[in-house]
Amino acid sequence: MQGVDHLADERNKADFDVGVMKIVWAGSRHAYELSHRFSHLVANDPVFRKDNRPLLSRKELFKASLRKAFHAWKLIKQLRLNGHPSSLWEMFVPAIKAQGSEEQLQQWLPLMNKMKIIGCYAQTELGHGSNVRGLETTATFDPKTDEFVLNSPKLTSTKWWPGGLGKIATHALAHARLIIDDKDYGVHAQVTREGKYVPSEVPRQLSYSTMVYVRQKIVFDASIALSRAVCIATRYSAVRRQFGSQNGSPETQVIDYKTQQARLFPLLASAYAIRFVSEWLKSFYTDLLERLEVNDFCTLPEAHACTAGLKSITTSVAADGIEECRKLCGGHGYLTSSGLPELFSVYIPACTYEGDNVVMLLQIDLGSLVGNLSCLLCQLMENLTQVARHLMKAISHLNSENKPIGTTAYLCRAEQLMQYHSDVLRAEDWLKPNVVVEAFEARAAKMSMACAQNLSKFNNPDDGFQELSPDLVEAAIAHCQLIVVSKFIDKLQQDIPGKGVKQQLQVLCSIYALFLLHKHVGDFLSTGCITPEQGSLANEQLRSLYTQVRPDAVSLVDAFDYTDHFLSSVLGRYDGNVYPKLYEEDICCGYVGGKGSYKHVGDSKIEETKWIEYCQHMDYQNIVLKIGDELFVSKIVCVKD
Amino acid sequence: MQGVDHLADERNKADFDVGVMKIVWAGSRHAYELSHRFSHLVANDPVFRKDNRPLLSRKELFKASLRKAFHAWKLIKQLRLNGHPSSLWEMFVPAIKAQGSEEQLQQWLPLMNKMKIIGCYAQTELGHGSNVRGLETTATFDPKTDEFVLNSPKLTSTKWWPGGLGKIATHALAHARLIIDDKDYGVHAQVTREGKYVPSEVPRQLSYSTMVYVRQKIVFDASIALSRAVCIATRYSAVRRQFGSQNGSPETQVIDYKTQQARLFPLLASAYAIRFVSEWLKSFYTDLLERLEVNDFCTLPEAHACTAGLKSITTSVAADGIEECRKLCGGHGYLTSSGLPELFSVYIPACTYEGDNVVMLLQIDLGSLVGNLSCLLCQLMENLTQVARHLMKAISHLNSENKPIGTTAYLCRAEQLMQYHSDVLRAEDWLKPNVVVEAFEARAAKMSMACAQNLSKFNNPDDGFQELSPDLVEAAIAHCQLIVVSKFIDKLQQDIPGKGVKQQLQVLCSIYALFLLHKHVGDFLSTGCITPEQGSLANEQLRSLYTQVRPDAVSLVDAFDYTDHFLSSVLGRYDGNVYPKLYEEDICCGYVGGKGSYKHVGDSKIEETKWIEYCQHMDYQNIVLKIGDELFVSKIVCVKD
Repeated sequence: MQGVDHLADERNKADFDVGVMKIVWAGSRHAYELSHRFSHLVANDPVFRKDNRPLLSRKELFKASLRKAFHAWKLIKQLRLNGHPSSLWEMFVPAIKAQGSEEQLQQWLPLMNKMKIIGCYAQTELGHGSNVRGLETTATFDPKTDEFVLNSPKLTSTKWWPGGLGKIATHALAHARLIIDDKDYGVHAQVTREGKYVPSEVPRQLSYSTMVYVRQKIVFDASIALSRAVCIATRYSAVRRQFGSQNGSPETQVIDYKTQQARLFPLLASAYAIRFVSEWLKSFYTDLLERLEVNDFCTLPEAHACTAGLKSITTSVAADGIEECRKLCGGHGYLTSSGLPELFSVYIPACTYEGDNVVMLLQIDLGSLVGNLSCLLCQLMENLTQVARHLMKAISHLNSENKPIGTTAYLCRAEQLMQYHSDVLRAEDWLKPNVVVEAFEARAAKMSMACAQNLSKFNNPDDGFQELSPDLVEAAIAHCQLIVVSKFIDKLQQDIPGKGVKQQLQVLCSIYALFLLHKHVGDFLSTGCITPEQGSLANEQLRSLYTQVRPDAVSLVDAFDYTDHFLSSVLGRYDGNVYPKLYEEDICCGYVGGKGSYKHVGDSKIEETKWIEYCQHMDYQNIVLKIGDELFVSKIVCVKD
Repeated sequence: MQGVDHLADERNKADFDVGVMKIVWAGSRHAYELSHRFSHLVANDPVFRKDNRPLLSRKELFKASLRKAFHAWKLIKQLRLNGHPSSLWEMFVPAIKAQGSEEQLQQWLPLMNKMKIIGCYAQTELGHGSNVRGLETTATFDPKTDEFVLNSPKLTSTKWWPGGLGKIATHALAHARLIIDDKDYGVHAQVTREGKYVPSEVPRQLSYSTMVYVRQKIVFDASIALSRAVCIATRYSAVRRQFGSQNGSPETQVIDYKTQQARLFPLLASAYAIRFVSEWLKSFYTDLLERLEVNDFCTLPEAHACTAGLKSITTSVAADGIEECRKLCGGHGYLTSSGLPELFSVYIPACTYEGDNVVMLLQIDLGSLVGNLSCLLCQLMENLTQVARHLMKAISHLNSENKPIGTTAYLCRAEQLMQYHSDVLRAEDWLKPNVVVEAFEARAAKMSMACAQNLSKFNNPDDGFQELSPDLVEAAIAHCQLIVVSKFIDKLQQDIPGKGVKQQLQVLCSIYALFLLHKHVGDFLSTGCITPEQGSLANEQLRSLYTQVRPDAVSLVDAFDYTDHFLSSVLGRYDGNVYPKLYEEDICCGYVGGKGSYKHVGDSKIEETKWIEYCQHMDYQNIVLKIGDELFVSKIVCVKD
């Protein structure tokens, strides 16, 4: 980083070891070094430049992304980096890995790894999203030719949404209903040459484990997207000044306004919270794989529900958070050069398409290339409904031998939690981890129990589930938020070295939990978990935590270790030197202005019919003003460079 | 509308007179006829076609928008329509009208009206947004030449954000600090030829009235943007089916899912609520103008605070609502052809730049042309803070002669409202207008009073205001929501003819109010306005209202009377014939598919190094699959048309 650091004052204020925090954020020293090396490699490679993107047409953009993808693949091969090109189409490869037979794996994996084939995932049809059983495409076995005849009989059966990959793929993994001798077997694999259907030897559970893998990746990606936006908004909030000047002193930094803090700092805390819950999910997944190896499926249902729910809430928080960060940057946040509009539009599908390892690993911009959106966006509710079903099942098993485990274990204490009333007396009480966790447990348990009770009033459980689905979704959200809060607190039980690092994380953890409590105070009050007074105390504590975290804010986003290239945001520049770069790089919004004084020029007559042509002089750089006898109406003449 | 109406069943279900509702929505029969005529005129004029927009480069798009603007202007002149071209740059003209002297008006208005000049508004500087006093550009009077020398001394003083107009304007309204003989007069007008500063003869209050005008237009525009998105999402939710098929019956319409209803119907109700509050604001503004004519400034402070607050909350609801509608359309909502992504990105600044009369009136797409963003986005909080100041002032005057009036009149009953506890016993009680209004009044009053009390603890009121600003903002929101709810209820006191029209509006009004109550139940509970049981009853009533409004939903969006051209959304088509058009019009997302059966073709060998070139065959239309001995992995070859 050359030149003056406009944020040096901010960095000097930090009361913790940023270097250690970088390692905590990355997950381990090894992960940090790998990611650091990768990101600088990419930042310094001209093939990965991004600055010309806003002016490219869609087709040029598409081609540029392909060029980058190919270059990334070559790089990975050359440098023997830990990663492989197939991760460019993350849905294609894991699905084959999970559902393919040994023979199929041997045929396709080497081709994929050598990039001899490019595959896309063709499940969704124009008229059918997540309901796989409703797919209309059929695969009819023809024993004469030993081939399958694929047929999409109607317009609505058109395979849809493989995204950019659909345009360049050489192969597709197409989902279809199997037909043999006019009999419809549904979506299945494996038929003998004689035309006999043979159920797959691959256990169905393994395909669930792929889903778990993909979803935990999505949670991880949510932490990256959100932290990226938070990094931009935090740095710019420290640079930008507005109002509050007294006797010629500089105006107040925007980050010092309480309303700014109350919106920004919870997002900073959320980025860390999502990061740590994704770390936990990863270890959960590793444990799951080990269990599956020995045919132990006991944690699979929980993994399934847990990842579905966490995917839903973290991707929503990230998407909303990016948009909020854009607003926190004021008008300039709307500029393409702020990096936020593109981050938002690229993230929206990213929170749903499955994985994009290389994209994130190499921190390049392939958003326009990949994009298996499926209809997963509408799965937000479906995923939460899955969690709700899992919760209702757990409650129904309370009196059986098959008691709730893992993240639902607290429901075993449901009876006790139903009687819970917080005993908080002072604001500081809300800093105690067990006080917070108990309140979140009681809220989640009471909401779930109320749903279970209301469900029992319906003769047909399906009707009840449909009727009460909005309440069930709210209970599922409460449960998922409890998980995130608990895992953040668990993280703090670990041994974390480095001056002040653990203290910072404790502050962020409390901000995260108390912000959620404030946002959902209606839940906590209506379930009787807390009193209005206790709610006010939590709010009071929250405000004082904002003041506490303020001096460390810039360093806490530095800890993400993002390069300026990755952020691709003038507002989020590491050195805070925002305005000159904004002036140079703004290529998308018109502006009127000039360096130094305006010069007097002759009058310019413009005929009304000529203005369309006139406007084509778009490449002017300087604007010269004719000053008449008015102060505030001045003539502008565009001059060519 | 030709062909089959796929939504005919939905339209037959409606239990009210849609024709009359169209007039209610438009505000009057005259307004309806005008808007109907305009929108069909535009829809049938080839110059205004939009279908090629997604593939245009930024420069082409800019030129196309100019062409449309110019054509719109000619049309207005030819047809002597009620509107004038100057409204293309709404900030420039009203500002001159409000702040210009008689002489200035005579010089500039005719030129503007004949489009001999094109003006932009150059207030904001690169480093300064809403803080006009902080502007750095100076205008120094030079008595020798009788000219002002404008100087933007620093990079941060560069005039910024006139948007697209900055590129084509012939004139700019530039804000600068007046300097005479080295004395800095701040931002002011009018200097004599001898170099003597003369305060403007235009009363300062008149410039406030422009702001009131502009803001009430923004609230109106919010109702248009939100209703447009709601129209698309509602129609598509009735077309789209997913899951729930039994014994070969069609799948369930998405609109029948309770979770969909709980997210969609409040937005439908909000569109109507915002519409009616904007109607009220318009009459408030007319009244204000009449008062100002006779130097009666008594309603000005309220108008100022009221429009600031309503602008903030309605634009946020609209922006968030558009995004929510996109999610409600599942994956297809992300397609450009859904119309929602562009609506969102164009609306975001639209909720802040001032007006765009022609754009909305003629319903064309000038989003890329106009765009005086200023730094108004970050004014969300500032505006609400203004409201909060107004509320605190009203409370401080409670015991004086200068008692709160208009929308703050309820604060006169503060003492009584502080004792308020809702007496709701049954769910139906929540349908009574006075029950709802009282609860909202009590909540707003209690929140404001609590703020006033906490403020009084600070020695320095400014410190207190800064420290408590997040709470003050929440109180301001509660106050503004009360206004919207009250004005909706007031509307229902009017004589509204037409079968079932008033009944529908009553349902929507209750949905709006009870949805807000549910969303902010924490406020109502913590202020003791309602008990948790009363909150549950409100929720129960809300659910039953969703069921009630369901059969009328499609007709309620038909009442907006939007043409397919205006919606420019395949998903929101009037006839509901979504899929064939989606297939034809999708030009932005890759897809894999084919009409009819896939054909067997020869193997195609693709070398790994060739794939970049290969992908350039982007203009294929058909995809042919080679079927191997696998079911789900099939080779795809792109063939040129």
